[in-house]
Amino acid sequence: MKKQITLLSGDGIGPEIMESAKEVLQVIAEEFNHDFIFHEHAIGGNAVDAYGEPLPEETLKAAEEGDAILLGAVGGPKWENHPVYQRPEQGLLKIRKSLGLFANLRPIKLIPALIHASPLKEEIVAASDIVIIRELTGGLYFGKPSERRDNGNSVVDTLSYERYEMERIIEKGFETALSRRKHLTSVDKANVLESSRMWREIVEEKAKKYPEVTVEHVLVDAAAMKLITNPASFDTIVTENLFGDILSDEASVITGSLGMLPSASVREDGLGLYEPIHGSAPDIAGKGIANPLGMILSASFMLRDSFGLEVEANAMEQAVNEALEQGYHTADLDVKDGTLVSTKEMTDVVIGSL
Amino acid sequence: MKKQITLLSGDGIGPEIMESAKEVLQVIAEEFNHDFIFHEHAIGGNAVDAYGEPLPEETLKAAEEGDAILLGAVGGPKWENHPVYQRPEQGLLKIRKSLGLFANLRPIKLIPALIHASPLKEEIVAASDIVIIRELTGGLYFGKPSERRDNGNSVVDTLSYERYEMERIIEKGFETALSRRKHLTSVDKANVLESSRMWREIVEEKAKKYPEVTVEHVLVDAAAMKLITNPASFDTIVTENLFGDILSDEASVITGSLGMLPSASVREDGLGLYEPIHGSAPDIAGKGIANPLGMILSASFMLRDSFGLEVEANAMEQAVNEALEQGYHTADLDVKDGTLVSTKEMTDVVIGSL
Ligand SMILES: CC(C)[C@H](C(=O)O)[C@@H](O)C(=O)O
Ligand SMILES: CC(C)[C@H](C(=O)O)[C@@H](O)C(=O)O
Repeated sequence: MKKQITLLSGDGIGPEIMESAKEVLQVIAEEFNHDFIFHEHAIGGNAVDAYGEPLPEETLKAAEEGDAILLGAVGGPKWENHPVYQRPEQGLLKIRKSLGLFANLRPIKLIPALIHASPLKEEIVAASDIVIIRELTGGLYFGKPSERRDNGNSVVDTLSYERYEMERIIEKGFETALSRRKHLTSVDKANVLESSRMWREIVEEKAKKYPEVTVEHVLVDAAAMKLITNPASFDTIVTENLFGDILSDEASVITGSLGMLPSASVREDGLGLYEPIHGSAPDIAGKGIANPLGMILSASFMLRDSFGLEVEANAMEQAVNEALEQGYHTADLDVKDGTLVSTKEMTDVVIGSL
Repeated sequence: MKKQITLLSGDGIGPEIMESAKEVLQVIAEEFNHDFIFHEHAIGGNAVDAYGEPLPEETLKAAEEGDAILLGAVGGPKWENHPVYQRPEQGLLKIRKSLGLFANLRPIKLIPALIHASPLKEEIVAASDIVIIRELTGGLYFGKPSERRDNGNSVVDTLSYERYEMERIIEKGFETALSRRKHLTSVDKANVLESSRMWREIVEEKAKKYPEVTVEHVLVDAAAMKLITNPASFDTIVTENLFGDILSDEASVITGSLGMLPSASVREDGLGLYEPIHGSAPDIAGKGIANPLGMILSASFMLRDSFGLEVEANAMEQAVNEALEQGYHTADLDVKDGTLVSTKEMTDVVIGSL
């Protein structure tokens, strides 16, 4: 299989962990006889430095033309005082919107070797295995008007959705639940928001098409509680953009292994952007100690979801798990009696297990 | 001191726990020579049954005329399929807005006797002592337009704020921080929302007036993580309505004693509505087993914040703590080797300690 992969390393530790993922992908390509062609482009703060904007036109064009995108991380103190349009994260928002990557998938599964790093008690977090499906190109993030009024004496932002935008993400929720334990939690704030009431109606409509899936409606405030008191009760969660932003980040810390978690932002035709959920960690950038596993798992997510390479994806995940089970860990992971390794060493251990 | 107290028992366990709070307040009145006059009015589901609306005009009038309001809880399955304007929680939204109760105060402090009930590891939750100040009468909750459009093919809600609404809640945040450990965390989503950028500017402006207070800006998604990974790092949190709804509920479960937590919704002149944060628990209503302590602590909150009765409020809190330290607990609290008691018995134990 021949695939064009757009690499957007970004800022901070981005380039280091991207290098790891690329090496692992190259080994996979050799072993399984694929041809992965990498195209590197700028995004985030370094793109602001080089082109004056966080998502240059040529990056967007390359991303649209390739088969999938890997992204490291963006941002850092250097660009914090830039005007809004020149902030690194605007590059993220723009690439999502311009490419129409409307579905953000965030799997969160407890890794047994890391359970003691969870802030939650073991008996509460142990059985956690959740996928959060977050709508990514609508809602308060992109609604207009979003502006000051009355000489700066008032301000509005707009939460807006088209029916088809809700329909497609809710369907993605049902499809995902169907491929898992068949339990879908739809999160909204229907006791306050009209948009949530429309969301809930669409969930009810779509539910008729998926009789095998059990659907439950939970208010966003109640969901924020339940993720802590009973995370194992969730299977698949589907929700709108801002609720998904908050809940997926909340959920990402319950397993104690944020540095390990991958994410995908995809659209109907399979084009997807894959990135670890951790940030650019400017404080440790360039030291060669960053954890590359979230990036490597993002690459395996890409193989499975964008390229349909199930066996290869499993091999990569297997190799990562073996490395952890053997006690190898980077500085961010607190593993009892383990072996502390660098980014490069961890990458070699994973490649060794392949 | 003579005070007119409006009692809004509401639905489910509301009337039972209100009875407890009233008894305790009567004992306080006798001991400290006060005159508390109680006025009972309908709100929520029972108001829908009796008057066809969740907040009848006469309730609102009485609440406005009295010195403070105690509220039990509203809601239940009986009213779930009513049209929106007849849902019990609309009564809550309307009383907040009509009386201008713009500041919601939610203290969350670990109760040592209940630490093992926390879903978090003891070392993480142990030192938690947070107050969340949530804006309560603006933002997405009340912004217009909030409607379907294009024949139901799209929908909008509006997040709107006036400058003075942000200013007064942010000042409340600084004042609260000043009376505590002088650390204020302002939560927003300034990397996406214009309203958050205005919020952040106002926080920076007000900070100049409070040089003793250390201010930190945290994005709402990051705050949702940090409440779990490091709750003890927070002192006072100030945020807008919806973020406050989600974060305060999230924070309420970390101590494992949701049934104990009081809240206040106040305005500048001291009028306030005090209520436990737990719900109406229709499943156990009428059984006499509900936990009255969140309601009793809401009453002591009222004594301190609306009436300035510091000594009396402390006496009530002291009595509640003693009851817990002696191992008395209701069915919702899981206390090792404790004595399980009913609502009435718990109330008597608290009164006995007074
Ligand atoms: C950087 C920011 C704009 C972004 C978001 O809010 O979507 C981030 O938090 C995320 O979840 O990817
Ligand atoms: C019942 C609901 C409208 C309310 C809110 O969202 O404000 C509740 O969750 C609360 O926090 O008091």
